[in-house]
Formats: sequence, C-alpha cells, structure tokens
Amino acid sequence: MVDMIELRKPYLLFLGDAEKEIDAKTAAGIAYWRPEDSLAQLRLEENTVDLGLPDMTVMEAASAGAGTFIIGLAPLGGDLPESWVSICIDVLEAGMDIASGLHTRLADIPPIADAAKRTGQNIFDVREPPTGLPCGTGKKRTGKRLLTVGTDCCVGKMYTALAIDAGLRQRGVSSTFCATGQTGILIQGSGICIDAVVSDFLSGSVEVLSPDNEPDHWDVIEGQGSLFHPAYAGVSLGLLHGAQADALVLCHEIGRMTIDGDFADYLIPELDEAIETNLVLARRTNKTVKILGIAVNSSNLDEGQAQKVMSELEGIHGVPVVDPVRTGVTKLVDLLEKTT
Amino acid sequence: MVDMIELRKPYLLFLGDAEKEIDAKTAAGIAYWRPEDSLAQLRLEENTVDLGLPDMTVMEAASAGAGTFIIGLAPLGGDLPESWVSICIDVLEAGMDIASGLHTRLADIPPIADAAKRTGQNIFDVREPPTGLPCGTGKKRTGKRLLTVGTDCCVGKMYTALAIDAGLRQRGVSSTFCATGQTGILIQGSGICIDAVVSDFLSGSVEVLSPDNEPDHWDVIEGQGSLFHPAYAGVSLGLLHGAQADALVLCHEIGRMTIDGDFADYLIPELDEAIETNLVLARRTNKTVKILGIAVNSSNLDEGQAQKVMSELEGIHGVPVVDPVRTGVTKLVDLLEKTT
Repeated sequence: MVDMIELRKPYLLFLGDAEKEIDAKTAAGIAYWRPEDSLAQLRLEENTVDLGLPDMTVMEAASAGAGTFIIGLAPLGGDLPESWVSICIDVLEAGMDIASGLHTRLADIPPIADAAKRTGQNIFDVREPPTGLPCGTGKKRTGKRLLTVGTDCCVGKMYTALAIDAGLRQRGVSSTFCATGQTGILIQGSGICIDAVVSDFLSGSVEVLSPDNEPDHWDVIEGQGSLFHPAYAGVSLGLLHGAQADALVLCHEIGRMTIDGDFADYLIPELDEAIETNLVLARRTNKTVKILGIAVNSSNLDEGQAQKVMSELEGIHGVPVVDPVRTGVTKLVDLLEKTT
Repeated sequence: MVDMIELRKPYLLFLGDAEKEIDAKTAAGIAYWRPEDSLAQLRLEENTVDLGLPDMTVMEAASAGAGTFIIGLAPLGGDLPESWVSICIDVLEAGMDIASGLHTRLADIPPIADAAKRTGQNIFDVREPPTGLPCGTGKKRTGKRLLTVGTDCCVGKMYTALAIDAGLRQRGVSSTFCATGQTGILIQGSGICIDAVVSDFLSGSVEVLSPDNEPDHWDVIEGQGSLFHPAYAGVSLGLLHGAQADALVLCHEIGRMTIDGDFADYLIPELDEAIETNLVLARRTNKTVKILGIAVNSSNLDEGQAQKVMSELEGIHGVPVVDPVRTGVTKLVDLLEKTT
C-alpha cells in the first residue's frame, strides 16, 4: 500500500521575502492554476510580491478554514531562517498542515518536527516519494492517458499538462493532472516526485500515480526531462513506459539550440527525431500511442514570427502546434474531445 | 566526493546452510571469478554445499589474513537467524569487515551495528548506493568502455562482462570489471547497485563508477535490465547514457519468448531491433558506439543445435556470436584486442 500525499485544501500561500514573482513561482502557479484552492497569501515584508490574494496571518487563515500552509520558495540566504521556523510552528499549532517543496526536509528540523508531533498535524516534504512504491507490472490499465514529453528540461511540460487538464475539465471531460515534480504536486495537492524515486520503482511509481480509471477519464501526466538528456533520460523512459500513454504532446522551446545548463555539447534533437524516438519507445507498453500535437514556448519571438513558425511546424509534422501561453491549448483539447 | 565501497581482500565466504550451489551462487561466483581473493569457506552444516575451498572458522580465517566476511546468500527461512547474528559479531571482533548482499541491512540489526561500532570494523550492505552521487554531466571521459546490454533481465550480462574482463586481463590488456548489481559488487569488491540509486543520479552514478582512465584501458560495465523491459528500461537507459560505451555486447537467451517473470504479454524483442534501439540511444553520449557481438545463453540446446544457431546468428547480424559458458568469449576479446 502506497501512502500517497493528499494535501488538505484550501491553502495559505507563503511568499516569504520574495520580491519578484519569479522567486515565488510555485505559489504564483498555485494561485494561477488553482484559484479555488488559494485562500490567502502570507507576505513577510512591505515589498514582498503580491499575488492578488487576501493577505492573512496564520491565525486568520486557520480561522477561515485553511488546511495547508504551502512553502514553495527557498529563503534568499539558503538556510531556513529562525523566523520561518517560528511561523511553521505557529501554523502547526493553529491546526494546519505544512507542505514544502524545499530541498531541506522540514521534518528534519527538530523544533518543526516536535511541533508536528505535539499537534498531530502533518508535514509534507513533497520532494520525498512515498514509501512502498512497487516495481512496474506493465499491465494494461483502464482509462486514457496523455503524457507531455520534451526536447529538453524546462520546455513547458508541466504548464502544457496543466493547461490540457484545465481545458478538458472546462468542457466537462473527466480529467486529472498527475504531478511528477514538486511544483506540480503543490499545485495539484498530490503526486510523486519521480526523479527522487529509486530507479527500480520508476515505471511502477507512474503506474501507481495513474491507476485504473473510468474508460472516458483522462489522466494528464506531467513529463520530466527528455529522452535526449544525458543526465535524465532514464527518468523520462521510466515515465514513458509507466504512463502507457495513449497520447503524447511534445514540448519544445523555439530557438533553444543545446541542452540547457552545462550541456553545450548536446544539441536539442530535431522535432521529428524526438517524436519518433518517443513513439517507438512508448509503443512497448501501449501499441496504439499517438502524437497528439506539439506545444512550443515561442516567447523569444514576436506574434507574427511565432504564428509563422507554428504554422510551418504544423505543415511539417502534420499535427496541431500550440503555444500554451500565447495561443492556449484549444486545438489539442479539441482533438482529445473528439476521441473521447 | 562519493564514498565508494572497496572491500578488503581476501574473503571468507559464508555458505550458511545452503545445500545446493544455486542457493550459494554469489559465493560460488566469487570463488569462480576471483579464486585469488577466495581464502576460505565457512559452512554451518554437514551437508552444506562445498565450493572446494579450505574450510575455516572465523578465527582461523582472521589469523590467515582474511579481510572481509562475505554474506551472499539469504537464510532459508527469510529472517536472519540468531546464529548468523552471533557469527557476524565474532567476525567483527576478529578484526574482519562484513559485506552483505541481503535485502535486510546488517547495519540495521542493533547487535551487529553495535559490534561494528565497538570494533571499528566496517559493514558493507552492498545493495545500498554510496551517498553523494552526482547528476550526470554527459562529458566525454578518457579510456574505453564496453557495456553488456540485454533482451531481458537474467540473460547473462554479468557473466559476459566478467568473462570479457578476464579475457582482456589474461592477454595483458588493462581492464576493470565495473559492477552494477550486488553479486557483481561482491565479486569485484567494489561497484554501485544501480537499480537502488535515486533516478536523478542514474547516469551520474555510472559516470562515477567508470571515471577517466588511461587511453588503452577498458572498463567492462555490467548491464542491468533491458530497454525492452516494462519495469526496468529506465535503469537500462540511464546506464547506457552514463556508460558512454564504445562497444556494446547484446546478451540473449536462446528460446526465451517473453520477458521473464510476470510479463507474459511482452515478447522478447528481435535481436536486430534490440541492437538498433541500443545503438540509436547510446549514440546520444557516444557517437562512435559499435555493436561488438552477441552473447547467448544456449543452455537449452545441445552442442550441435547451439553451434548451428550461433553460426546462423553470425550470418544474420554480421558480428561474432558466443555463448560465454559453452564457447568462451575469445572471439569478442580478439576483436577488442585488435582495436586496442
């Protein structure tokens, strides 16, 4: 039995001393994708970024029914400051749980761990995978699955999956966003941080994350890494096999030439190669897998250039091409709805 | 800095109450592949299997200079019996280390852990990966590398790698067997149990396992799983990318039709498909990777049939085909020596 994370909603979003939205991007993501779960924000300084939510103290949020205090950002200095530790203790004593995406485990900080024990509240260090994950079985599951895959890391796999999931639900199609990274988990309130899973359980953990479901239900699974990434391709293949995806969406940043970070010797693959490699390997666990479309990040281009490039790519690859931020994902959701 | 296992040699091989060689196959493997490291055996019962080594008590072995007591077999019942715990304590008090391939961590058994602390001796639970493993860099390393890959699990990847390493060293070619599973680690005295590594560090751990070396040195890396295995392909791809192999040897069991274990829906891939998929993906981190040959397990066939099948496979695939047990790996080592 796998003890999956299930965060109690709604949330009090902690913004700490972040001065720019980019430094509080997890909280901003939660507020954007899950406004119904975002009860309030807690800001420490005058010039802390404002997500437009009601400002509440810990006590106010608890009284208003907040279930979980979300720490999605790292402190500016690195180490957890004493003031954050005190806030965490206040949160637990006010009857709320804490969910953290920090590298440092809150459960390893004695005063916080003690307060959790004393109050009976939960600490969710969401980077940590659940215990009891099984090896994969490869057995066919009921329901439908979409997986976002990428030409690299950080090309919009989470954003695209969230947008498709939202689009399906807006049309009344049953859909669940299945989070595989800490930001996605904090947005969805559940999920498994797949790159923290012991390798043996890679595909098994995706099978657990996206179990049997109703025939018309879509699980929209957040991809990680890339089959072409020299450090993380193993994660991507375990995810691809475990997902048994019916539909893949390839995510790509227009203009990126080499793998991000310290991998300048590694060219971003051609899109047709990326599609073909993903399909060939995905067929091992689902013979009917299809490429649904391509989701680009065209933020380097102006509107005219972007439309031109997307239209060219549609001609070359014969599938809809969207930029989830610029155009939305309607074209992809249209296609999915037809097949449902 | 990664704290790699490095076992102190020679070994006292523990055979417990195993009555058949198959139940003591790790110890048998060590005695076969590393006779120079196998000082003695410790057998508990009259009818315990005999590997043909001198029988010694713990004290005798310690006096004769044994460095490590090797536990490569699980007790018949499952749980570690009290008598084994006492032996472990005697071993540590006699000044030897313990290396164990058991699922149960010896370091988690308080009387054994206490004895290790008291005596200053080491306990190596070799399934446990070292701490501090990095993410992969994909940077080209010096020296040469061979990786055994497979059409499935348990098709001879470790045996083939050990045989090639031994063949190279017999000819005076510099070579190291790089172990990636618990049995291989106990044979070699070092290595990383790759399927126990957190996914993020898969290829990075192989980079650490097989670092820069002399230009003419071969690292012969033990493969794990298969790119076609619905549970373990992620491990295999991380290994393939991290190895940056110059040469691949495909391992295959003649006559096996479906993936071993509970995977009857998954056909064993065609050999040309297995070769091509491994080469295509391996090229990502080493453009000059080649398939050196095929190593089959032909134990289901008689001598005449086996020779016929191997000869046919050589005709089809255009590379040497060996059965490491039946024919040895001379043909493969010949080819490697030519390129050195």
